[in-house]
Amino acid sequence: MAKIAIMGFGTVGSGVLEVCRRNAASIARRAGEPVEVKYILDVRDFSDSPDAALFTKSLDTILADPEVKVVVETIGGTKFAYPYVRQCLESGRSVCTSNKEMVATYGAELLALAREHGVAFLFEASVGGGTPIITPMHQCLAANHISRIQGIVNGTTNFMLTKMKRENMSFEEALKIAQQLGYAETKDPGDDVDGRDACRKIAILASLACGHHVYPDNISTRGIRDITVTDVKAAEKLDSAIKLIAWYDEGTDSQMAVGVEPMLVPNSNQLAGVDDVFNAVLMQGDMLGDVVFYGKGAGKLPTASAVVADVIDALKDGVKVHDSLFWKPAPKREGLVKDPGTYAWYIRVRGVAAALLPNVAGPGHVVLEENGEAAYRIDAATVDQIEEIRGKIRVLGGEVALVLKQLAD
Amino acid sequence: MAKIAIMGFGTVGSGVLEVCRRNAASIARRAGEPVEVKYILDVRDFSDSPDAALFTKSLDTILADPEVKVVVETIGGTKFAYPYVRQCLESGRSVCTSNKEMVATYGAELLALAREHGVAFLFEASVGGGTPIITPMHQCLAANHISRIQGIVNGTTNFMLTKMKRENMSFEEALKIAQQLGYAETKDPGDDVDGRDACRKIAILASLACGHHVYPDNISTRGIRDITVTDVKAAEKLDSAIKLIAWYDEGTDSQMAVGVEPMLVPNSNQLAGVDDVFNAVLMQGDMLGDVVFYGKGAGKLPTASAVVADVIDALKDGVKVHDSLFWKPAPKREGLVKDPGTYAWYIRVRGVAAALLPNVAGPGHVVLEENGEAAYRIDAATVDQIEEIRGKIRVLGGEVALVLKQLAD
Repeated sequence: MAKIAIMGFGTVGSGVLEVCRRNAASIARRAGEPVEVKYILDVRDFSDSPDAALFTKSLDTILADPEVKVVVETIGGTKFAYPYVRQCLESGRSVCTSNKEMVATYGAELLALAREHGVAFLFEASVGGGTPIITPMHQCLAANHISRIQGIVNGTTNFMLTKMKRENMSFEEALKIAQQLGYAETKDPGDDVDGRDACRKIAILASLACGHHVYPDNISTRGIRDITVTDVKAAEKLDSAIKLIAWYDEGTDSQMAVGVEPMLVPNSNQLAGVDDVFNAVLMQGDMLGDVVFYGKGAGKLPTASAVVADVIDALKDGVKVHDSLFWKPAPKREGLVKDPGTYAWYIRVRGVAAALLPNVAGPGHVVLEENGEAAYRIDAATVDQIEEIRGKIRVLGGEVALVLKQLAD
Repeated sequence: MAKIAIMGFGTVGSGVLEVCRRNAASIARRAGEPVEVKYILDVRDFSDSPDAALFTKSLDTILADPEVKVVVETIGGTKFAYPYVRQCLESGRSVCTSNKEMVATYGAELLALAREHGVAFLFEASVGGGTPIITPMHQCLAANHISRIQGIVNGTTNFMLTKMKRENMSFEEALKIAQQLGYAETKDPGDDVDGRDACRKIAILASLACGHHVYPDNISTRGIRDITVTDVKAAEKLDSAIKLIAWYDEGTDSQMAVGVEPMLVPNSNQLAGVDDVFNAVLMQGDMLGDVVFYGKGAGKLPTASAVVADVIDALKDGVKVHDSLFWKPAPKREGLVKDPGTYAWYIRVRGVAAALLPNVAGPGHVVLEENGEAAYRIDAATVDQIEEIRGKIRVLGGEVALVLKQLAD
């Protein structure tokens, strides 16, 4: 009988308990022994719960019990989660977490700490919820060099963009529905709609791909607040969909580039058809070519099932599995990672006649004009050139209201 | 330095050597030590090869060298591969293989033998080529009960069906091109076009899902030879595509069903958009919901990179990883596994007036009529009912030329 503890009994934490119980038999078969939740750490009062006996408010209870081999962290955030996870690893416990913020911020440090203490630090559920992404990436693609990642990794914004496209909704209307369905936070939906959640996830995948820590603070991150019905319509005319894409490109001469931004995705690209709350991550391996992992992103049981799979791994393998799930610490750099690429672009411009745009913005074509705005597709430009175009339009008394890079096929 | 041996220096075997050399540094980092190919077993003469010194014609050379910890089997077939793999496992070597025929035929036995000798038997590359399918299935979905699998697992037939659809080609024309491109065997393309290759792959996935050996001989298997331009056209009218689907359904009361057949896939289903040589496997976990793994199926380096990833795993983990990658032996049953489901169907009928079909085949509608044939969509029927319909049409002097089940959304 393997004993584990759960820290944080919110949505995912309670899901972990449920998964462990509902699939007890098959989990036992795969782990080689039954898995039992012995403690649940939570500051809130659960004395009325049928599982009241499992609850503790003190981490020391868990640390003092030598029977506990693996600790699940589902507190979220970093304030408590980070010191608690450190203590668990230092005490010789493996830790499995769904906490992307903590992994994106302290991943290299916690991986090193786990290695030092001969235990596992696993976080499959931190990207893609229940959809397997991190494990196939570091394990099945172990013989590949991963040069590119492009993903739809935030289900909430993908749901909203799908609504906007299918039902001609505004951003505000789509957000309202996402909040009513519990997909977006009611108080502050910024983590989702401003791209911070996607940023943490691509920080984790980029770190794993390039082998050293990539900080969320260094990743240029833009959400979907500026997308309007006009943009959605223009995208359709361009046989494309607008998607919030988290991307990584190893570049040449280790000039790694990484970003989160809404992009124009041609319908011929598989990511264009990924709708609703689904996530999909495309990776390019040098031996393998493109591979895509696709599934429903979040949700209590999907995410919990990924955490439990990590628990099974941790119980079986201890530290040995982690030669491939590892990246080195790196100093935080100043400012944002630059994107040196040349792309096709979509811009929406106010206050400048559409007829002038070819002169101002270079070769391309007007996609549509309405309500005093013009949507224009630029054939090829770098990020710097787009900034120059923005300046020129300002000089003409206009304004660039939105810029979307086009994702390559 | 970890030493390995390769048995069989064909396409995949030579790819394994190439991958090991080209990505030596990252493989070493992930395996925890450099990986070197010490022997290559092949009956053919390679004395002119720059690697001539590595070649041996005798398995005993490999078995006698205690330095060799992992053996790669890429001979193919079962005649030599099976006894050689047995000997390797019995001698305490882990084996990594891409050989679906061997795994589908002797998987349970070889897994048990590996467990008995404390070594690993790994075969990620046997399904989906380089695309990770088996590892995420048994490892990341370890906390899930897998109730359904639907996959496009044969790249050759998928390429042919794509050609037939896009370019209005006949089966024969599409086969010719597939042969010219080296996707299909020139001498006997039957393994691909008659579904035997797909059958072996779904036998492996079904065995892993249900926990006991599922024999290819018990799987109802039908290929794509009977698909005509008319069918492709009718499928388009039904907003669907014809795909060769390998499927598994756990059913109720352990009435597991499994099959390989061309199916009518509605365009709303993600598998409809999987074109060319790509593979995609959809799995349904009870906790996770649907998840899809997608990538280019075959190819020398993709497949080899999956074998090498298994080698890295075997070097790291030995036998412990395999509590989840395991299924039990089972007696071969008599005849084929029955499919008790009720489906919508597409039938193409010769020699019976289309107007009669609603009476003969039950509720549905005529999709198109041409060249004395009628394509008819049946709203709902079981496999047994389809056989009854076939009989009725024969009584009327007609013939059912093709039957396609419709894949549920």
